[in-house]
Amino acid sequence: MVRIVVATAAQGSTERWHRALQDALPQHDVRAWQAGDAPVGAQYAVVWSPPDALFQVERELKAVFNLGAGVDGVMALPSLPPQLPVLRLEDAGMAPQMAEYVIHHLAWLSRGLETYAKQQRAAQWAPLPAIRYDEWPVGVMGLGQLGAHVARAVAALGYPVAGWARSPHTLQGVSTYAGDDQLGAFLARTRVLVNLLPLTPQTTGIIDAALLRQLRPEAVVINIARGAHVVDADLLAALDAGHVQAAVLDVFNQEPLPSDHPYWAHPRVRVTPHVAAATLEDDALRQIVERIERLERGEAVSGVVNRATGY
Amino acid sequence: MVRIVVATAAQGSTERWHRALQDALPQHDVRAWQAGDAPVGAQYAVVWSPPDALFQVERELKAVFNLGAGVDGVMALPSLPPQLPVLRLEDAGMAPQMAEYVIHHLAWLSRGLETYAKQQRAAQWAPLPAIRYDEWPVGVMGLGQLGAHVARAVAALGYPVAGWARSPHTLQGVSTYAGDDQLGAFLARTRVLVNLLPLTPQTTGIIDAALLRQLRPEAVVINIARGAHVVDADLLAALDAGHVQAAVLDVFNQEPLPSDHPYWAHPRVRVTPHVAAATLEDDALRQIVERIERLERGEAVSGVVNRATGY
Ligand SMILES: NC(=O)c1ccc[n+]([C@@H]2O[C@H](COP(=O)([O-])OP(=O)(O)OC[C@H]3O[C@@H](n4cnc5c(N)ncnc54)[C@H](OP(=O)(O)O)[C@@H]3O)[C@@H](O)[C@H]2O)c1
Ligand SMILES: NC(=O)c1ccc[n+]([C@@H]2O[C@H](COP(=O)([O-])OP(=O)(O)OC[C@H]3O[C@@H](n4cnc5c(N)ncnc54)[C@H](OP(=O)(O)O)[C@@H]3O)[C@@H](O)[C@H]2O)c1
Repeated sequence: MVRIVVATAAQGSTERWHRALQDALPQHDVRAWQAGDAPVGAQYAVVWSPPDALFQVERELKAVFNLGAGVDGVMALPSLPPQLPVLRLEDAGMAPQMAEYVIHHLAWLSRGLETYAKQQRAAQWAPLPAIRYDEWPVGVMGLGQLGAHVARAVAALGYPVAGWARSPHTLQGVSTYAGDDQLGAFLARTRVLVNLLPLTPQTTGIIDAALLRQLRPEAVVINIARGAHVVDADLLAALDAGHVQAAVLDVFNQEPLPSDHPYWAHPRVRVTPHVAAATLEDDALRQIVERIERLERGEAVSGVVNRATGY
Repeated sequence: MVRIVVATAAQGSTERWHRALQDALPQHDVRAWQAGDAPVGAQYAVVWSPPDALFQVERELKAVFNLGAGVDGVMALPSLPPQLPVLRLEDAGMAPQMAEYVIHHLAWLSRGLETYAKQQRAAQWAPLPAIRYDEWPVGVMGLGQLGAHVARAVAALGYPVAGWARSPHTLQGVSTYAGDDQLGAFLARTRVLVNLLPLTPQTTGIIDAALLRQLRPEAVVINIARGAHVVDADLLAALDAGHVQAAVLDVFNQEPLPSDHPYWAHPRVRVTPHVAAATLEDDALRQIVERIERLERGEAVSGVVNRATGY
């Protein structure tokens, strides 16, 4: 029997994961934990934006499972022991959701669906010319579990798609660029920029004035990774200058997005409340359960975050 | 050298296809034709909603190429000789466009994007629970070039998808139903109905009160085939009764949709002006050119319409 502690930012969410994990692992002892609770001596922690105090109190942890793909929240905690393995979810039902979200918003612009919605309000029948895919080159930043899937799904629709990552990748139907040296070439051919990078010191603020300037005219920015990838003032300036025609934003420097933030009312910005891809409970549970069993048998597991690169 | 006549409903379109075909077939004699013109003695006609007179005048035709997937317009012409082979376009870039159109509108409802657009207008941050795919069974009527592709694309996103056709089909990841006997079972498990049937005497008016009643509650109807598949009064009644929560309509009994039609202003109806999938010129030209060459060599070609079934 091992002891597992569950800690998230919200009590309801902690309770839900606590119950689900205990049901999935009846032979183990699963406990809900919140700041102020006594140590439970757990070997594993299952977390989403947990209180830093968790790592001050639980000193026997062998691994931390992050209930999401992005580990920037955990990585930022000062008390996280430097050698403690952090595991993230891989896909967990998120990749198809991301593809659906991107396709929805891409079509809204590229297929004229925004225009048709306006025409409908005026009872106006005015078909636009057929799409010319060469006018809509899509570029995906980040070719991990999520980015690679999105790149392939958009390429399958006929769009010219490129992807950019730290290391070289080969992806059928997608032209790929690697490293800082090739970022310029990637941006110069991209009109619709989809961000699926992890948030690390290297990628914080990457979507700034200098980057946006290099995109093709009438650019579109779709940010579904982390708010801190974007320098908001620079994006707003590029929107107002017209070089960026639209931004689709799911994540923000401050969440919930403050009600007086200019994004809410901007006519060329679409805001969604961090929902581009939700962790699907069944998939997530399966990954965590399988990995705990493997770790208990001393076997290797995937999804371990590289503490040097931060993702 | 063969002679080819081009005839469509609009002069601009006739001119465009005339030029494109002549460029693609420099060794042949391509002519534009409109009602009132003298016979040109063509062996092939390339048409989209041509005047009936074409078939009274051109008596030497060996085959007719329809510049679209649906041949109901040509089939309805009284002067079309009963033995004349009619060829339709197969896919021609339309299948991915159809998938994109369906995914866009499906996500609009199933992923709460309509709700988020309303929330944005109120600067309100209120994430909905994650999608439960079992609440969104999609059913595709018609499993031809377009329907089969759409069914696969939606299934790849995680939705439970079924398809219905005249004959039995096997499609990976899609449960299939065949013939009138199995229509009831198909409808009973379907919430989002996507229509990609051809318009034939058997399918005219198929989406009527009796059919709509059999769909699961809070149904969604996406009609991207032909307007005459739908009995408009029945669909409007089902919308107003709430059994159908939304309709996405690209095609109509009368096109352009008259400006006083109730669909335009209905809060639960989305209207687009017959643009769900445009024939892509390059793909269409490639199919026509290749088929003329094969026919001239006496070889078999695909895409020949079955005059008995009408599609
Ligand atoms: N909005 C939402 O609802 C939501 C939901 C889930 C996830 N997310 C976000 O999506 C992000 C991506 O998730 P994932 O599972 O796809 O991550 P992943 O598998 O770790 O992939 C990360 C990708 O980014 C590339 N990358 C990292 N640092 C880079 C740098 N400095 N320069 C260029 N490329 C760099 C990596 O390159 P290499 O391949 O060369 O290593 C890799 O291709 C998460 O970190 C999270 O922030 C958002
Ligand atoms: N809105 C637009 O922009 C647009 C653009 C292009 C096409 N379309 C429409 O899309 C339609 C479908 O095109 P497609 O190329 O996919 O056609 P297709 O390849 O001929 O496929 C037709 C499908 O419908 C099935 N079917 C025909 N009659 C049926 C019946 N009575 N009961 C049950 N199933 C029946 C067929 O069954 P079997 O497989 O058993 O033969 C086949 O699976 C076209 O006819 C056209 O009207 C619309």
